[in-house]
This record gives sequence, structure tokens and C-alpha cells, in this order.
Amino acid sequence: MKLFRRLSNALPALVLLSGGAALADDTASDLAAKASASHWGYDFLADLTTDIGPRMSGSKAEQDAAAFAADRLKKAGFDDVHFEKFPVTYWARGAEEADIVQPRLQHLAVAALGHSAPTPAGGIEAEVVVFKSYQALIDAPEGSLKGKIAMIDQHMVRAQDGEGYGVAVVSRVNGAIEAAKRGAVALVIRSIGTDSHRLPHTGLMRYSKDVPKIPAAAISNPDADLLARLAAKGPVKMRLKLENKSTESETITVVGEIKGREHPEQVVLLGGHLDSWELGTGAIDDGAGVAIMAGAAKAIIDQGLHPKRTIRVVMFGAEEIGGGPVDAYEAAHAKEANNIVIAGESDFGAGKIYNAAVPAGAQGSAFAKQLTAAILPLGVDMLHEPSSHGGADIEGIHEKDGVPLIDFGQDGTHYFDIHHTADDTLDKVNPADLAQNIAVWASFAWLAAESDIDFRALSSSAGSAK
Amino acid sequence: MKLFRRLSNALPALVLLSGGAALADDTASDLAAKASASHWGYDFLADLTTDIGPRMSGSKAEQDAAAFAADRLKKAGFDDVHFEKFPVTYWARGAEEADIVQPRLQHLAVAALGHSAPTPAGGIEAEVVVFKSYQALIDAPEGSLKGKIAMIDQHMVRAQDGEGYGVAVVSRVNGAIEAAKRGAVALVIRSIGTDSHRLPHTGLMRYSKDVPKIPAAAISNPDADLLARLAAKGPVKMRLKLENKSTESETITVVGEIKGREHPEQVVLLGGHLDSWELGTGAIDDGAGVAIMAGAAKAIIDQGLHPKRTIRVVMFGAEEIGGGPVDAYEAAHAKEANNIVIAGESDFGAGKIYNAAVPAGAQGSAFAKQLTAAILPLGVDMLHEPSSHGGADIEGIHEKDGVPLIDFGQDGTHYFDIHHTADDTLDKVNPADLAQNIAVWASFAWLAAESDIDFRALSSSAGSAK
Repeated sequence: MKLFRRLSNALPALVLLSGGAALADDTASDLAAKASASHWGYDFLADLTTDIGPRMSGSKAEQDAAAFAADRLKKAGFDDVHFEKFPVTYWARGAEEADIVQPRLQHLAVAALGHSAPTPAGGIEAEVVVFKSYQALIDAPEGSLKGKIAMIDQHMVRAQDGEGYGVAVVSRVNGAIEAAKRGAVALVIRSIGTDSHRLPHTGLMRYSKDVPKIPAAAISNPDADLLARLAAKGPVKMRLKLENKSTESETITVVGEIKGREHPEQVVLLGGHLDSWELGTGAIDDGAGVAIMAGAAKAIIDQGLHPKRTIRVVMFGAEEIGGGPVDAYEAAHAKEANNIVIAGESDFGAGKIYNAAVPAGAQGSAFAKQLTAAILPLGVDMLHEPSSHGGADIEGIHEKDGVPLIDFGQDGTHYFDIHHTADDTLDKVNPADLAQNIAVWASFAWLAAESDIDFRALSSSAGSAK
Repeated sequence: MKLFRRLSNALPALVLLSGGAALADDTASDLAAKASASHWGYDFLADLTTDIGPRMSGSKAEQDAAAFAADRLKKAGFDDVHFEKFPVTYWARGAEEADIVQPRLQHLAVAALGHSAPTPAGGIEAEVVVFKSYQALIDAPEGSLKGKIAMIDQHMVRAQDGEGYGVAVVSRVNGAIEAAKRGAVALVIRSIGTDSHRLPHTGLMRYSKDVPKIPAAAISNPDADLLARLAAKGPVKMRLKLENKSTESETITVVGEIKGREHPEQVVLLGGHLDSWELGTGAIDDGAGVAIMAGAAKAIIDQGLHPKRTIRVVMFGAEEIGGGPVDAYEAAHAKEANNIVIAGESDFGAGKIYNAAVPAGAQGSAFAKQLTAAILPLGVDMLHEPSSHGGADIEGIHEKDGVPLIDFGQDGTHYFDIHHTADDTLDKVNPADLAQNIAVWASFAWLAAESDIDFRALSSSAGSAK
């Protein structure tokens, strides 16, 4: 009933729903305009980062963030606002120090990598062996790093679509395993980031069962420059001290919906993640994403719209810390996965969206044409290529359950200047760019939820839609 | 003798000195080209910041930096390389922490201000009163801050010539005095900087004899944003802990010269400062400046030139920590001040020079015309206005002894993003821009030292040279 009331409160200019394509198209454009003008999404983000701040998965702050988000969703008129809880390892950063101690004492800006073991109480002091790339480390013979600290000095390349991350991040994820295999007592990496500030980039790292779990940390790019310059001159010794701790805890995924009026079981899933690293306040990663997704759905509610299918906003917990919780969501929802008609994720900051890709099955469809028409005025191209990737939170349901993906490409030219650093704060978000993201996602969510299209089907026009 | 050998080793293209204006002009242009191509200045800076790093006035590191610089000057063929030592208070940063503790715990990026008193051992915890400007603090009645932490939230304006610094810096210099007068137990300021990174800007602050010496610190701009947003919502409590210490020590000024062939007692003084804050490695402030000045003189040596007057490169100690040592240099040299024919300072990073101003007495002179001709191809305008300011190191000899000033204006659009932060590292210096600075100063130094002009005299053409 509430939803029908919403509809009847819609602006007079809104023609009553009749299922026609032209109607949906006008509605999407109108929605985009209204979404662009709303402050709700930005306010959500501002309050999340101001009143809660950092919200590490498994922490008390994450619980508070979940309570905050659920409260906002309820007040905004979302249906079925609820929590889904999953076990998680809470990794808590402690004191951390890195110093060059030879040839002379110089302090380095350092951050332990997520899941890193702590160092022994007194720290580790050892000679540093610098590798110019991850490959160079791989090429080092077994045993060659015995008693040494391995340093991977691979630079990350700046690219609009963030492609440099995929290339560089292996140092962070697998570096400790590969360094330990060769005898190293610790791993230090050049930050996986495109900036040149004294703010190290943290992020997830992995261990392997059969290899010693050595401590792993990132130093800032200017510090990596310094270390590389010194190493080119002679032996460098480093002292590394990390006091982080791991405990078992639980993470919270927050869900809110706009229930579909005709096919409530069919779900258009809009995902982002609520948890964040704790060096910054998680504004671009991924406060922006959850603000965008919730803001997009809120715009639909505000317009009194009531689509055929359900729109589900999912604010995932524990994206950053990886693995388990995202898989757990997939496991918990596998039985309904066939009803998730399409899923999208916003987890790349608040840079403007500049392109879009729909599943192959939808290319050339009325849906795709309506979407193209709605987002082109917002500065978004529809790509000729079909969508092929979503994001970490939804890759489980995509890969295991075949849920089709919508993909909006954001301008990430500067995203990795900030990503996973203390600099991830509200000032890095441009409210107008955030609003453009909200408008694009609102248009998409409305069109997808109001459509009957089966995104899984291979449309005969796929590939010929160019 | 050595100097004459240098001359005879000059390039064949160099016409023998005959005192003619055309000759000097060609020489300056040739010198600028050669100076631009030399790596000596950049190497000096790279090695200073890499091998020594931070060099706080009065510290062991400053002594090491002085030894390094003197060694480089000697190897480069400078005459009379020597130290001049002055007493200084060595202020050493200790552990420092600032947290918002109400409405919820949030860590702030903080840096004690130079000369700040430490907090009591357990730190200070108090409510914060936020002032949007320094003036707002001044307007607060006496006693109104009893038991509170005063926070000055004045933003610094970005400007090419850095004019925003002069307006904003009063918060840092006098804020603790004014806050203490009104009863505050500590002062916190928004960083005096134009960036939005989690890297606070330190810098000099002052106390007054009759006012309690309260601890004073800067928080980064994003942290100041957060604090201001929270303060707009309700009461904010902060905990501040600073463990810095002050001890009596000495600072070292390093001097090297190119002795004049005709008037060795007449000095063209090129100044910068060798000391630096210790959060970064003092690359732009002021490693660049001393590299530029030494590099300019080195270019003259490399060309085998031997000017009439002495060129003196002075790498001041204790510029950052202020007051005493610079005055001490003035006092030590007051008796020769009449022979310092002109002085210039490079202490604004390595941004390109884009304008120049000569003393009123020199406007329209052959010297000014030659200088204009030499630097215009380097992208430097000669201003119609005479020079009116030099810099902190040379203001003593200018104001007390009337030493005329040369002033080259550098592009400082981004200088205050970095200034006095941990981000003051070598990567912030563009080698080509540094080389342009060296070329400009080399041209000037040669022309001024080869000239007979009396910069103190009021030229009849001054003001009409437009």
C-alpha cells in the first residue's frame, strides 16, 4: 500500500504507468534529473564518514555503521530493511614502524597489509633486497632471501579505468608467500597506488598453508623512492615493527529493498560495501558506492515510482578483508540466484561514470535503447562490448550462479591516489560527480526493474547492435 | 691563480673579458644554457635528501648536512668554504597524538608546531571551541576559553605567488599566545597549507613572556574538515598528547665563494637555508634553494668565469626555527654589510621562476637590460616594480644594513601543498624546473658580479624604465 501511495504522490508531469517503452524512457530521464538534484546520497556519505568514520570489518565501528545505514534506509522508506551476518576474522592494526637503520636512520611511512602477521615483539631488523618487479622476485632462486627483508618496488601505472591495479596488486596479494618461499623474514612493498604522498596504501594480502607467514607491509611511494635510491648506492638495513592482531568476529551486510509490484521475487541487485579500511574514513572506498546505490533507489522512492521487479540495495560487509563473507552471501542466496535478474556494483569511488556495458543478452534491446537514451545526456557512452565484470562483492553470484552484470565505468584516473590510504576522506568526493553516479544508477535500476527482459537470454541482436 | 686557470679553460667561443656590455650579455646567455644542462644542482639535492634526509636545526643531522654541503662545495672548486656557527634552541619532536574522543573516537593526523611546549605526560583532554578565523579568536573575550582547546579553522588561499601564506600564517605564529590569553589550555590549528591530504603542516610558533605557554599543534586539512563538521553538530572533545623537547645547541651556516678578481671585498650574496623541518626530507624547503644557489655558482665556475666581484653562496642554518640565528648572521656581518652589493634568496621550492624585480636603483641600467635579455628566453618577465622583499634569511641585512635585494618570483601554486609536511620529498622537485632556476640565478650572479653598478644608488631612470 505504501508503494501505491508513493506512486500517487508522483509529480503531475508523470504519466500513469501503462507499460509503454516511451513512458519508461521519460520516467528515466525525469528520474535522472531529480536524482541529480537530491542531496540525500551525499548527506548519507557525509554523515557516515563524519559520525562513524573508519569501519573495519568485524569491528564495533562496522556494527555502528550498519545501524546507521539501516536507520537511514528505514527513514527513506525502504522495504524489508535487515541485516545478514557472517563470520569474519577481525584484523586490527596496532602500532607500526619502519625505519631505515643503515646507512643512516630514516623513518618510513608504513602500513601493515591486511591479515599480515605481527612482527616479533622487538621487531625485525634485516638487510633489504630490492626487486624492481614482482616478476624479479619470482625469478629469485629458493633460499636466496634467507634472513632478508624482500622489497618489491613495482610501480603502479595510472589509467582512467584503473587497469594498472590489476597488474600491480599481485605484489601485495601474493608477495609474502613468494618472498617467504625464498627465505625472506618479512615483505615490504611499494604502495599499490598512483600518488606520490607519504601515505602508504594498505590492502588485503594472503598466506599459504605450507609457507611461513611472514609480516608484510607497504611503504609510501616517496619512501620506496628513497629506499630504491639508497639501495642503488649500497646495503640498506631496515627495522620493521608491526603489532596488529586478529580475532574472530562477525560482519554485517545491510539490505533494503523496493519491493516489486508485479514480480517481487525478481531482483535487480545494487551492491556496494559498507566496511572500510581504517586508515581513512572510507569515503571513496566504499562509502561513495553505498551512498550511490542507496541514493539511486531513494530517488526512485522519492518519485513515487513502483517498478515491477524488486530493487535490492546490498551494503556488503567485509569486502576489504576478502574471501569468506562474500562467498557466504553467495551461499546464503544461491537458491534465489536465478531470480537475481541482474546485479551491479559501485566500488570505484565517486568519479564520473563515462561508459556503460549491458549483458550480451540485452544488447540492442528496448531496455538497452532506453538506458542509452537516459544516460547519454549524463555523459555516459554505451559500449559496443557487453559487460564482463562487476566487482568483488558480486563476482560470487556472477561466477557461481550466472547472475548477469551491469557495468558502469567510472573515471578512476585519481582513484588510486587515495585508495586504501589515510587520505580516503570526504573532501575527495565531488558532490556533483556523486550525483551523476546516482542519476545513472537510478535510471538503470528503474529501467531494469520496470522491464520484463531476461538478461540471461542471448539476444539474437547481440553483437550486431553496433 | 686557480681562478685564472678556470678562465683560460673556458670554451673557445667565449670572447676574452673586456668589460663590454655585449660580452657580458652573451656570456650570461651561454651560462644559462650550460647551467640548464648541468645535473650538479639536482644531484646535490638528491644526495642531500637521500643520504642525509631531514636536518632539523641544532640536530646531528644538520651537522652532517653541513659537512656534506661543505664537501660538495670544496669539490666543486668554491673558495673559502667554511662554517659559521650560532647558538640555537634544538626543538625535537616526540610522539604526538590527537584524537576526537567525543562524540566518538576518531584519530587525527597531527603535528606539533615548532617550539611548542609538550603537553603534560597524560595529555590534555578538553572540549574544543572552533573559530572560523584568527580574527574570530581575537574577538573572543578574555577568559572565554578557560579549560578549552581553541581550534582556529582558517583556510589558506591558493595563489601563484603564495600570498595566502602571509594572510593565514598568523594563526600558527601567534595563535597560542592569543588562545592562552583567553584561558585556553591548548591550541590546535587547521594546517597552513593548500592541500587536502592527511599530512599536517608544522612550522614555527611563538610564545609571549607574560602568557602561559600552551601546547600548539596543527591537524591536517581533512581532519580540520571533520572536526568542523562534528563541531557544527554538537560538542566535540579532543585529547592531545605532545612529547617534544627543547635543548640548547648550535646551528651551522655553510659558506662558499667565488672570489672576485677586481673587487673581492664586494659581495653578491646568494642565500638559501640548509636546515629543514623533520617531517619530510626538506627537498622543496629548502634543499632546492641551496641546490639552486650552489648550482648557479657552480655553473659559473664550470664556465671558467671569474667575475670582478665575489659571489658568496650562504647556506643558512636555523631558518625554520626562526629569530636568533638569522639575526646572528646579520650581527656577525654588519661591518661588511656595506660591501654586500646585492643579496637574493631562494626559499620557495623549485617551481619555475616567472618574474624578476631589481632594486629601484638598478632599473633601466645596462645591468637590468642585460639581465632582462638573459632571462626572458627562460620564461621570466622583468617587472616594472622594483624589488621590495627577499626572504627570511636576508631580511636582517636588508632591513638593518640596507643591503639591496634581487627578487625572482617562482610559481608557488603548489608549494603550500607540501610545505612543512612529511610530503616534502625529492619526488616533488621537477629537475627541469630546478635547472631553470639555476640558469636564472647563474645569469643574475654573473651579471651582478661582473658589473660595477651600485645597487644602492637611486638611478635617475628608476621608475621611468617602464
